[in-house]
Amino acid sequence: MTTFSGSTATAVVDACRRQIHLLVDGRYVTQAKEQCAAAGAPVNVCVLQQPSDKPDAIRKIVGAGDIVLDPRDITVAEHQQLNDTVTTRLRPLNHPFGTLRRKKDEAEIARIARSALIADAALREVCADGLAGKSEREVRNRLDAHMLSSGADRTSFDTIVAGGPNSAMPHHRPADRVIEASDVVIIDMGAEVDGYRSDMTRTYVPATASSEIRLFADVVREAQALGVASMGPSVDTYEVDAKVRAVFRAHGVEEHFLHGSGHGVGLVIHEEPLINRRQHAILESGEVVTMEPGLYRVGVGGVRIEDLVLITADGREVLTHSPKELSCPQ
Amino acid sequence: MTTFSGSTATAVVDACRRQIHLLVDGRYVTQAKEQCAAAGAPVNVCVLQQPSDKPDAIRKIVGAGDIVLDPRDITVAEHQQLNDTVTTRLRPLNHPFGTLRRKKDEAEIARIARSALIADAALREVCADGLAGKSEREVRNRLDAHMLSSGADRTSFDTIVAGGPNSAMPHHRPADRVIEASDVVIIDMGAEVDGYRSDMTRTYVPATASSEIRLFADVVREAQALGVASMGPSVDTYEVDAKVRAVFRAHGVEEHFLHGSGHGVGLVIHEEPLINRRQHAILESGEVVTMEPGLYRVGVGGVRIEDLVLITADGREVLTHSPKELSCPQ
Repeated sequence: MTTFSGSTATAVVDACRRQIHLLVDGRYVTQAKEQCAAAGAPVNVCVLQQPSDKPDAIRKIVGAGDIVLDPRDITVAEHQQLNDTVTTRLRPLNHPFGTLRRKKDEAEIARIARSALIADAALREVCADGLAGKSEREVRNRLDAHMLSSGADRTSFDTIVAGGPNSAMPHHRPADRVIEASDVVIIDMGAEVDGYRSDMTRTYVPATASSEIRLFADVVREAQALGVASMGPSVDTYEVDAKVRAVFRAHGVEEHFLHGSGHGVGLVIHEEPLINRRQHAILESGEVVTMEPGLYRVGVGGVRIEDLVLITADGREVLTHSPKELSCPQ
Repeated sequence: MTTFSGSTATAVVDACRRQIHLLVDGRYVTQAKEQCAAAGAPVNVCVLQQPSDKPDAIRKIVGAGDIVLDPRDITVAEHQQLNDTVTTRLRPLNHPFGTLRRKKDEAEIARIARSALIADAALREVCADGLAGKSEREVRNRLDAHMLSSGADRTSFDTIVAGGPNSAMPHHRPADRVIEASDVVIIDMGAEVDGYRSDMTRTYVPATASSEIRLFADVVREAQALGVASMGPSVDTYEVDAKVRAVFRAHGVEEHFLHGSGHGVGLVIHEEPLINRRQHAILESGEVVTMEPGLYRVGVGGVRIEDLVLITADGREVLTHSPKELSCPQ
């Protein structure tokens, strides 16, 4: 809403006057003013001399109006300080910006699509050099360096490179283990451009992988393709997850699926809507979500395939273009 | 306390039985068990089938005992859910692990020192190639790539490279602006090793920089050296900050000092104790803090010098070794 990119700030949105007050400390005054002016955002930048001035600054801005707060975004201590300072009501409200965040406009979609292309290019280049013989960290370093030098502001999250047995851990942290020729390798990566992120997973399955891994790969590909195909406007995320899960159940491997089928992506890497068996959410045009089923078994390994999908007026558009079956020179 | 490095988990510390219960979701079960076992930590890993199971899982672990919570670490929504579920008291307590976090043991200090050396080496290599003619992003990319390939798990924070007018913003985000030969350049960087971070800033001041920048550089060097020299066990951080500030005041430039003098560093980049004019904290042996005065003026530029300092039994040890006056080929 403000385009400010610093690490610390508080925004007070005046819904009546259509004005945003951005409270920052001395480190960020010039940056906040420049960024908000460049974006043409109706933002009034206020300087806090010290953090403890914040409740009183909010009180002055708000005046006689109630304050609406997301209870999932404010700590008990912050709530207490504000409550002790302001004279008006503090009203809890979940997701005050839910729809705004979920539905991306064209400029937001363009940034996410660009982030996805940056990750595609990095994966293509790094795979072309081969994975076997390199450590997981080395592969991670090459992917990250490629994304940064292609215009990413940063990586979307800590890039995952998980080879052989490490691939049984969905969020393995890249280690010094050297990737062997017969290793399955999960790569989960994304780039961030102007605050907007991408998310993609591919799994390299060599011809010499074990029969169980090759079965996992076939089933995950089937489930992932069905999951993507079943997404579109007015579709319930619960039903999408159920279809993915049904594929795993039919193959008797559902117990090895350790997470949900997907999640929204935007300013943060995990946002609404979630695609899992615990909640219902109706997909709408303009939303960007992942579809990322995976199967994992300790001692065997894992396989995950993830695309980033834009919901469109008449269906969907996949924003990640890397081939589902990675080919790497040995 | 657990050595678990995943993105999401909740730890319940049973102070009586000296046991930690770590609640994780399906993605992290294997990773949490492996990491905690490798560290020999007394951790019982519990799997949450869904996030909403958390309050009830905590209730079962806690039994008839009170729950002590840091109000600055828990959201209003989480507190409400827990309050609705448990039958015992929720007691607020600021800094339940404050001393534990502030005072680093030998293994923690070794990791921080290694992180600092990694940043030193990256800065040396990248400066040796020269800064002028490269964009801020290019310099950032080289620094990050060097740190990752030298063993950093990630960067401590988004590396700052701010050239010319951009150096007037203490936390400028690297842009496409190409650094010119006469530009002052602030570089603020750190590496993370096994969860522990380093933090260092150097400013390249070319001989052709403006007289105001060269004055800033002289004054910042004086203030920074005095700040470091005044740190030691039993010293009040307020007094340290006051000495730094007095140097700026004596030179009539205090209004251009836009932040505090320093902060603790460890598992996160900004932690206790803070060194500023708003609070008192007594430094103790084993604490690791920054000393980072800076001066900034819009339209002119800025200068910041930051060291990472370990407080020792009889004084201090500076963990960052890069020369204060960077020399770069033109």
